[in-house]
Amino acid sequence: MEKVISYLDGNLEQSLDELKEILRIPSVAAKGEHMDEAAEWFAKHLEAIKMEVTLHKTSGQPVVTGYLDNGADKTLMFYDHYDVQPAEPFDLWDSPPFEPAIRDGRLYGRGVADNKGDAVSRIWAIKAFQDTSTDIPVNIKFIIEGEEEVGSPTLPEFVKKNSDFLKADGGIWEFGGAGIDGRQEAWLGLKGLLYVQLEVERLQMDAHSGYACILPSAPYRLVWALSSLKDVNGRILIDGFYDDLKGLTETEKDVIAKIDLHEDMTCDHYGITQFVNGLAGDGLKEAFYNAPTCNIAGLGSGWQGTGSKTVLPAKAMAKLDFRLVENMHPEDIREKLRAHLDRHGFTDVTIAWHDGYPPAKTPTDHPFVSFVNDANQKVFGHNLTIHVTSPGSGPLYLFKDHVPMVSIGVGDYDSRAHSPNESILIENYRLGMHRIAVLIDMMGAWQADA
Amino acid sequence: MEKVISYLDGNLEQSLDELKEILRIPSVAAKGEHMDEAAEWFAKHLEAIKMEVTLHKTSGQPVVTGYLDNGADKTLMFYDHYDVQPAEPFDLWDSPPFEPAIRDGRLYGRGVADNKGDAVSRIWAIKAFQDTSTDIPVNIKFIIEGEEEVGSPTLPEFVKKNSDFLKADGGIWEFGGAGIDGRQEAWLGLKGLLYVQLEVERLQMDAHSGYACILPSAPYRLVWALSSLKDVNGRILIDGFYDDLKGLTETEKDVIAKIDLHEDMTCDHYGITQFVNGLAGDGLKEAFYNAPTCNIAGLGSGWQGTGSKTVLPAKAMAKLDFRLVENMHPEDIREKLRAHLDRHGFTDVTIAWHDGYPPAKTPTDHPFVSFVNDANQKVFGHNLTIHVTSPGSGPLYLFKDHVPMVSIGVGDYDSRAHSPNESILIENYRLGMHRIAVLIDMMGAWQADA
Repeated sequence: MEKVISYLDGNLEQSLDELKEILRIPSVAAKGEHMDEAAEWFAKHLEAIKMEVTLHKTSGQPVVTGYLDNGADKTLMFYDHYDVQPAEPFDLWDSPPFEPAIRDGRLYGRGVADNKGDAVSRIWAIKAFQDTSTDIPVNIKFIIEGEEEVGSPTLPEFVKKNSDFLKADGGIWEFGGAGIDGRQEAWLGLKGLLYVQLEVERLQMDAHSGYACILPSAPYRLVWALSSLKDVNGRILIDGFYDDLKGLTETEKDVIAKIDLHEDMTCDHYGITQFVNGLAGDGLKEAFYNAPTCNIAGLGSGWQGTGSKTVLPAKAMAKLDFRLVENMHPEDIREKLRAHLDRHGFTDVTIAWHDGYPPAKTPTDHPFVSFVNDANQKVFGHNLTIHVTSPGSGPLYLFKDHVPMVSIGVGDYDSRAHSPNESILIENYRLGMHRIAVLIDMMGAWQADA
Repeated sequence: MEKVISYLDGNLEQSLDELKEILRIPSVAAKGEHMDEAAEWFAKHLEAIKMEVTLHKTSGQPVVTGYLDNGADKTLMFYDHYDVQPAEPFDLWDSPPFEPAIRDGRLYGRGVADNKGDAVSRIWAIKAFQDTSTDIPVNIKFIIEGEEEVGSPTLPEFVKKNSDFLKADGGIWEFGGAGIDGRQEAWLGLKGLLYVQLEVERLQMDAHSGYACILPSAPYRLVWALSSLKDVNGRILIDGFYDDLKGLTETEKDVIAKIDLHEDMTCDHYGITQFVNGLAGDGLKEAFYNAPTCNIAGLGSGWQGTGSKTVLPAKAMAKLDFRLVENMHPEDIREKLRAHLDRHGFTDVTIAWHDGYPPAKTPTDHPFVSFVNDANQKVFGHNLTIHVTSPGSGPLYLFKDHVPMVSIGVGDYDSRAHSPNESILIENYRLGMHRIAVLIDMMGAWQADA
């Protein structure tokens, strides 16, 4: 293994150059641009590490799979994605989002933390074995999809046709890294997601705003509808929204009890003096791990330029995302949302489109979790901070019956995934490669039931 | 006068060419671009009709004045503006907003109805007298400002220094034209205006929307604040908002009783089946002429592009305009708005900037009103539809103690002022020039107290 580690350190520059290559491809799923280009880039680089590669067509973006059959007993899986979030607002980036730049030991670029940096680090960990003629004691599978950032709408098509491919002894999910205290974290679950676009159109054209005295207002209709969904204390008011909500299990509570959310540091990070509604302590933890949300991700109507325009806008739009926790289902919540809007008289507020999936968790006591922790110990010298779930989402529900998944990665608390100036610490990237290499090395001898 | 009218008809093409010239200058006050260029264009064209022209500097955009002293008893004033509304959204224009185009007898371009078409038509009416060596029996004053579309913030500076210039026997305000029934309309008053930009910033950067479970939401704070300002029935909930509201006078009620608002045609025009809150009949008229408003002119936060972005936006913004009726004052309403926000816990919602002015009306029984009607009769063959006030706003309050103002113009009900595809009917423009010429001709002999 020393050879492998030395190789990774000696070729850090080259692997970063390769990462920069894929960061330059602006594969923003929301815009559907440059998707094939990014998929093909990964296909090419999986082939370069001798994998059997397939580009699976779906009704959406293609799914790239790679399989390295070493005739081993154990199989390790990686789940990654080649798509990224939109980079807007561009003017808040210190360097252009699709022109990777290194400053103060960090590599900046849209998607570097979420999740191109992880994907490339995993490919290089495997390459290091091969280029140093070191045996890889496990079979390895990659699933790299292109719609993670838009709710993985067509991944179920792939899974339906290729459910056998999902079988593995353990898997590493796409993201993770160092927490705000600098310690490595692992995420065992992902919240579910319901993403909807609400639209209101009340006039066939914008009107002079003098006519607001007699004409209906699309933006006000939307504001009232949004206001009816959640009160100022954060309570979601959709009838039945919390009906299926389950509490955390005793085992989960034990895991959470050990967690320090570093409240002061986290507040500083976001520039706030307290969390929403004054959440703290156990209440904060409960919200972090088990609260569903109703979030306005986007809002738009009328004149948003400088100065004034006196217009009564014909239309208004809101993008909402709901994070769902165990036992909640996006279809059910969407139906309840529609029923709520109708019951409150907002039949003019349409759900223009929607996406989503249910939540899922890998059990905290699954042996693969402690195995990943052991690998982490060898590289970082400390135990992983284990989170029973991430507050974010992902299509883990498609995998959970086939393979235990643990999410670790090369990011850190200042990585600003989904925000301007997304970045990773290059040192985390380097050690992240080490950790994957060690994990591969250890997994050949791992006894799941030991 | 026949010579004058023939001249106007014979030179229609040339006057439209001149109008197109100024339409090509995108003098959008909200952006503060091309303002000097537009002011100088008008200065040059007022000089061309032998006026004594001054470009008055203010702390904002310059005010252009022209004075034609014919040694007459009577003085006629024109109030116009060289600024226009923003043209966005550009993609809803059938031809580019700043490239004037003629289709089906209409001239299209931003500002053609509001109010460059009016201004140019007035200049040409005067030019027609001069080029046909016809005596102009009145003195004429022009005041052309550059900030009408942004609440005329520095016009008071001009008025304070030049109050003598505001004296005249009668004045023609900037806009007007044919109503939905094809009959010419006159507007005697303008509502007041309070325009505010509300801003909320709750995080120092956008966050991954998974964190909505523990972080505050700027867009939701804004939505709740906006929702607290007005209920779904349109009732404005700001404490004391309606305190100073006066009813219409008996004289005004008599004028209004004769008005037909052509409810069905107006609904068709905007693509609605009924007015807001089912307003109809007298209630509709009351709202049109005497209701203050609280309108969302713009709303923005987070991701507004295609598809989904799962972001918790750091900031949110709303642009609100309040139309104020007789006896209401923008400063008072702004203070009440601030107090309302504070009292409802929205101290985090800031009023980033504000503009505005009070309402004003020319009395319906002022003799200049019937004089303008007589001139209209001669050209259009019907009586003006007299509106006691427009639902829109303008700085009439600065003029009302100096000169009775009546607003007539070359627009029509489909002119789409402030909206995409702004246009005028060329036939209205032609007859509008005739009407101004006839009015100038008649005014020499007008006896205000006759």
